[in-house]
Amino acid sequence: MDALPESLNRLIDGLSDFPGIGKKTAERMAFYLLKSNDGWAQNLAKAIMDVKEQIHECPICHNISDTSPCSICSDTKRDPSLLCVVEDTTDLVVFEKTNHFRGKYHVLGGVLSPLDGIGPEDLHFDTLLERINGEEEVIIATNPNAEGETTALYLAKLLKEHNIKVTRLASGIPVGGDLEYTDEATLVSALEGRREI
Amino acid sequence: MDALPESLNRLIDGLSDFPGIGKKTAERMAFYLLKSNDGWAQNLAKAIMDVKEQIHECPICHNISDTSPCSICSDTKRDPSLLCVVEDTTDLVVFEKTNHFRGKYHVLGGVLSPLDGIGPEDLHFDTLLERINGEEEVIIATNPNAEGETTALYLAKLLKEHNIKVTRLASGIPVGGDLEYTDEATLVSALEGRREI
Repeated sequence: MDALPESLNRLIDGLSDFPGIGKKTAERMAFYLLKSNDGWAQNLAKAIMDVKEQIHECPICHNISDTSPCSICSDTKRDPSLLCVVEDTTDLVVFEKTNHFRGKYHVLGGVLSPLDGIGPEDLHFDTLLERINGEEEVIIATNPNAEGETTALYLAKLLKEHNIKVTRLASGIPVGGDLEYTDEATLVSALEGRREI
Repeated sequence: MDALPESLNRLIDGLSDFPGIGKKTAERMAFYLLKSNDGWAQNLAKAIMDVKEQIHECPICHNISDTSPCSICSDTKRDPSLLCVVEDTTDLVVFEKTNHFRGKYHVLGGVLSPLDGIGPEDLHFDTLLERINGEEEVIIATNPNAEGETTALYLAKLLKEHNIKVTRLASGIPVGGDLEYTDEATLVSALEGRREI
């Protein structure tokens, strides 16, 4: 829109690149930002820069973190013999919200999906095998859908070759559902009812 | 969430302050930003800063602009004897999109709304009266709802005391509707069918 200042058009374009944010919503957000107090806008801009500069992947578990290793990996009060394998950081966050799991995590970075060209070499299986010594129990907490189950079975087979105890989250999470939207009580019961596969 | 790095929590909090953006959407946006390429994120942060630093209100028409006066007020090709009075900048932008109106604008900064404590002294009536010399036609393009009509009538009375020709947008825009969502053809016909009040 020619009628708008160049920087405002730039902001609208940038905001509408977010998934789920259309042009109209981006315009409304940009005008809200324009009318908001300077402090909030500056903090928002700074937070964007800080997130990109300070947050990196933990070299051990592939969680995102502003420390290396991440706060969970370096927490000596956590049980290192209990490893929860999740698809991505958002799933890890859901477990942490329950305040129930005191082991450590391993973030795969996705699931096996031949149709999307994602094979075992694209997921963090190698670093998982490197960090285990045979004493651990590995809880596979991929989503209970087709790709998640395939990934769980593949990983279970891989780990059993190394004589690792492998468990899967108990039923309780609706099949075809999504970990990120599971309520905490269901997640706790799924943790407690985990079964060996 | 303790599990997330501090800067990411700050970003989520900042994003969820936008109207219509809930915690969940803010989380999804923050993670998208985290995984996006650095250039886009940096441009977004810079656009936020630029918008706050460079954009100010035009001293003549109260449109937002990065120049003073704004590009419309300083455009000598526009007809200074035709003044379109709008509630806010978003309404001005809708008119500009039609490429049909070649006069100038005056942004009121809102509408009269006694319930919200907004009286004539809170709107830019004074600067409107200052900039007219009696030769103009003033088109009142407030929204066709209760507050907009009240404001139009109040302003028309004020302008007629100064012997100004006052017109109102023609019907065509549904009553109770909102200027910002009107299609361009309807707006053009409303402009053309304007009537004296």
